[in-house]
Amino acid sequence: MYKVDLNADLGESFGAYTLGMDEDVLRHITSANVACGFHAGDAVVMRKTVRAAKEYAVAVGAHPGFPDLAGFGRRNMAVTPLEAKAYVQYQIGALMAFMKAEGLSLQHVKPHGALYNMSAVNMDLAVAICEGIREVDDELILMGLSGSCHIEAARKAGIRAAGEVFADRGYQADGTLIPRSKPGAMITDENDAVARVIRMVKEGVVVAADGTVVPVQADSVCLHGDNPHAVAFAEKLRHALAQEGVAVTDLRTVLER
Amino acid sequence: MYKVDLNADLGESFGAYTLGMDEDVLRHITSANVACGFHAGDAVVMRKTVRAAKEYAVAVGAHPGFPDLAGFGRRNMAVTPLEAKAYVQYQIGALMAFMKAEGLSLQHVKPHGALYNMSAVNMDLAVAICEGIREVDDELILMGLSGSCHIEAARKAGIRAAGEVFADRGYQADGTLIPRSKPGAMITDENDAVARVIRMVKEGVVVAADGTVVPVQADSVCLHGDNPHAVAFAEKLRHALAQEGVAVTDLRTVLER
Amino acid sequence: MYKVDLNADLGESFGAYTLGMDEDVLRHITSANVACGFHAGDAVVMRKTVRAAKEYAVAVGAHPGFPDLAGFGRRNMAVTPLEAKAYVQYQIGALMAFMKAEGLSLQHVKPHGALYNMSAVNMDLAVAICEGIREVDDELILMGLSGSCHIEAARKAGIRAAGEVFADRGYQADGTLIPRSKPGAMITDENDAVARVIRMVKEGVVVAADGTVVPVQADSVCLHGDNPHAVAFAEKLRHALAQEGVAVTDLRTVLER
Amino acid sequence: MYKVDLNADLGESFGAYTLGMDEDVLRHITSANVACGFHAGDAVVMRKTVRAAKEYAVAVGAHPGFPDLAGFGRRNMAVTPLEAKAYVQYQIGALMAFMKAEGLSLQHVKPHGALYNMSAVNMDLAVAICEGIREVDDELILMGLSGSCHIEAARKAGIRAAGEVFADRGYQADGTLIPRSKPGAMITDENDAVARVIRMVKEGVVVAADGTVVPVQADSVCLHGDNPHAVAFAEKLRHALAQEGVAVTDLRTVLER
Repeated sequence: MYKVDLNADLGESFGAYTLGMDEDVLRHITSANVACGFHAGDAVVMRKTVRAAKEYAVAVGAHPGFPDLAGFGRRNMAVTPLEAKAYVQYQIGALMAFMKAEGLSLQHVKPHGALYNMSAVNMDLAVAICEGIREVDDELILMGLSGSCHIEAARKAGIRAAGEVFADRGYQADGTLIPRSKPGAMITDENDAVARVIRMVKEGVVVAADGTVVPVQADSVCLHGDNPHAVAFAEKLRHALAQEGVAVTDLRTVLER
Repeated sequence: MYKVDLNADLGESFGAYTLGMDEDVLRHITSANVACGFHAGDAVVMRKTVRAAKEYAVAVGAHPGFPDLAGFGRRNMAVTPLEAKAYVQYQIGALMAFMKAEGLSLQHVKPHGALYNMSAVNMDLAVAICEGIREVDDELILMGLSGSCHIEAARKAGIRAAGEVFADRGYQADGTLIPRSKPGAMITDENDAVARVIRMVKEGVVVAADGTVVPVQADSVCLHGDNPHAVAFAEKLRHALAQEGVAVTDLRTVLER
Repeated sequence: MYKVDLNADLGESFGAYTLGMDEDVLRHITSANVACGFHAGDAVVMRKTVRAAKEYAVAVGAHPGFPDLAGFGRRNMAVTPLEAKAYVQYQIGALMAFMKAEGLSLQHVKPHGALYNMSAVNMDLAVAICEGIREVDDELILMGLSGSCHIEAARKAGIRAAGEVFADRGYQADGTLIPRSKPGAMITDENDAVARVIRMVKEGVVVAADGTVVPVQADSVCLHGDNPHAVAFAEKLRHALAQEGVAVTDLRTVLER
Repeated sequence: MYKVDLNADLGESFGAYTLGMDEDVLRHITSANVACGFHAGDAVVMRKTVRAAKEYAVAVGAHPGFPDLAGFGRRNMAVTPLEAKAYVQYQIGALMAFMKAEGLSLQHVKPHGALYNMSAVNMDLAVAICEGIREVDDELILMGLSGSCHIEAARKAGIRAAGEVFADRGYQADGTLIPRSKPGAMITDENDAVARVIRMVKEGVVVAADGTVVPVQADSVCLHGDNPHAVAFAEKLRHALAQEGVAVTDLRTVLER
């Protein structure tokens, strides 16, 4: 039996600023990565987002980022591993309060934006983050880039890791994503994207730009939720997975295999 | 057997900015109110402060404030009860993460500065805060102004409340503090301050500026920790309480009576 | 010859967050109030907004607010007059840098949100703001609520003031706006709103909810720019004013009379 | 006739947080780099700092940094050249408002911390900053690291540049500073430091760690003001310079040569 989780970033609104189509996305995903107030989101938004996820029975994870609201957490910042650890712990805890208020428990942690990208290739940073997670709750799952430092760091720190793959991104022969600035970075054909996801889930491989067949750990597929097109694709992907006999379920269930 | 808790605000440093004599104060208090990153403190400071409190075996509480670092949370802000609730929950959760990382549990919550003052006289705000606390953890104790909305709101929300009194502040006949802008606001004579605390603890009363004998709930005495003078007073008070047969102990123990 | 200025709030986006239909609004207004990074806007947005205003030959004013991005500057904050003055000067200066870079000079200053509302009824605050403006540039015009402390404070501080009126708001007999929480606060009939503006401009009066004919100083009409409906109304109003022989022009020209 | 400017960072306090011995330092320097609210400082502090500099007749420059108060602007951030430009313009303008209020004009701009270090070795960033400065006021002087991209970028952008040197730092053969993490980074002997400054000013050279005699453009010497020791050194250096016949004067005068 094949299983996969579908995740998306939620709760990215801030004060008077609205971002994302959270209600629409919640209909199609099994795990929500909720912004925690550093790069996006605020206390009121977090509370509301957790309640919405509960309503749709979607598992919730923390989506900690850099303290850079103006840059949406997408700009690299030269933080120390200790700072990264403390930032992650702070944000996890903040979200946990809203989870407890709803009688829920946090499922996973997925670093956001530049913190995700930097820790995917920097083992010290990845280990610091994973140790920070384990110190707070060793049942939490790290959701990280398949094949990156994330997965190895989680193993070192003693927590479970879920490999994340991307439906709409091209891969390089070494399993990393093609940078957005280069040709082939985006998979624009939806049918192609769906086919790639199915192969990643069922066969555990993706074909890189140069034709290399690259192994991937496809525990969760990253979806987007900031435009109607993305929401439609999520629905389409979910339908295709069902037809292929792939169960779409939360991360905890996926990792039981 | 008389019992009282001594509390002080800790962890108010931020980034490169140092504030307070935390290590010195920790030698004399039984409960620390730790800033949570809104009006003061940051993730790295919180982590360090929790570890220091652990070292000195001092119970830890959250000290949530308004999101106003420039004003140190001392400026009234017209937040809604829902915003106050979410802000308190966010900050409690953030601190809890660092407590969990050290294998500790949070003892109490004391609103900071303008949030403390506003909620002491605004029942809607006080109830929202107390309900927010209970939703996160119904074992948490609200530390609030003796005789204020804080105490009543905690009762309404179903959590325990500890009455806080002030050694260095004058009281009015209705049990409220004399505003700092008015004569008699500060008790400047240290022996007088010590004597007042002892009477508040042993007899449950304080003499107001007009001579009225006012009942108070002296579960915890607020001390300061931002100057050597305050630290010396803490030591002096602690010595005097011991001589009077008053046990100085954490809030949980005080409330067992 | 009748003259009036039409103003709207612009540049309220922040980082990844977009707010307002700035390009559409610029086609219909003569003065733009540009957010300065405290309650909304950021340096990159300010730069872009000033360039857009230049392209449409719309005069630019600063729109300083409270340092409360999460509350969009709409929550009252108990700042001192000195803090208000310093905050306004800081924000005016920041915007002036982008104006200078485009070879433009700032026309006016309109306090935003809670800072506007608080200073409209608090003379100390209003005078502090106006003195702050004059110290930076005594040619700047204060745009404030017609009949409020704003106008009187500008006179005291020695700068020009422009009275602002509202097309879509009901007035009370004393010239203040009916609070949004009360019946009659909003003028929902567009034709009625247009007629009221024309009377305010040509006759200098508005009919209050109780029928009283109230004098107003209608130098500028506040328009909104956050939805297609508001933009359509701006166009309609502008057309009606032209038909009535009212010249729609920038504030400096309006105040020449 | 030899001339040199002595500069120090000022106005780094924030809200309730005090940093630096500004009043003491002002007695010894000729140019103050004033924090502008991003990495340190706030509107009230800026106003106060400008007034203090005026009292001591010390020339004022802007000290713009990254929007990273928690990191004091010392952490590299991957901003685009456009973002850097807009951030610098915003901060320059904000400070200019307080200068205008005191009837003063800004003398120079010295990027702070990580923005200084990054732009010293990144020509795109340095040019963006210098163009930003020129757009706001082409009379402003860039104070930058002697021999770095700063100096060349100022020339390209068409503004004057002042070379900054360090009394207490070791140099490498290529004219760059020895990183703080390496041996020889700090010149700890005060007499040695004084002698090095005098040679930098009078002969235009410094001896690198490997013995190489490196040319430097010593228009301004960077002093520190965060501890009594630093203030004492400033006094000592100033005395030594006077004995050597080196006039200590503001940057504008130094650049007249």
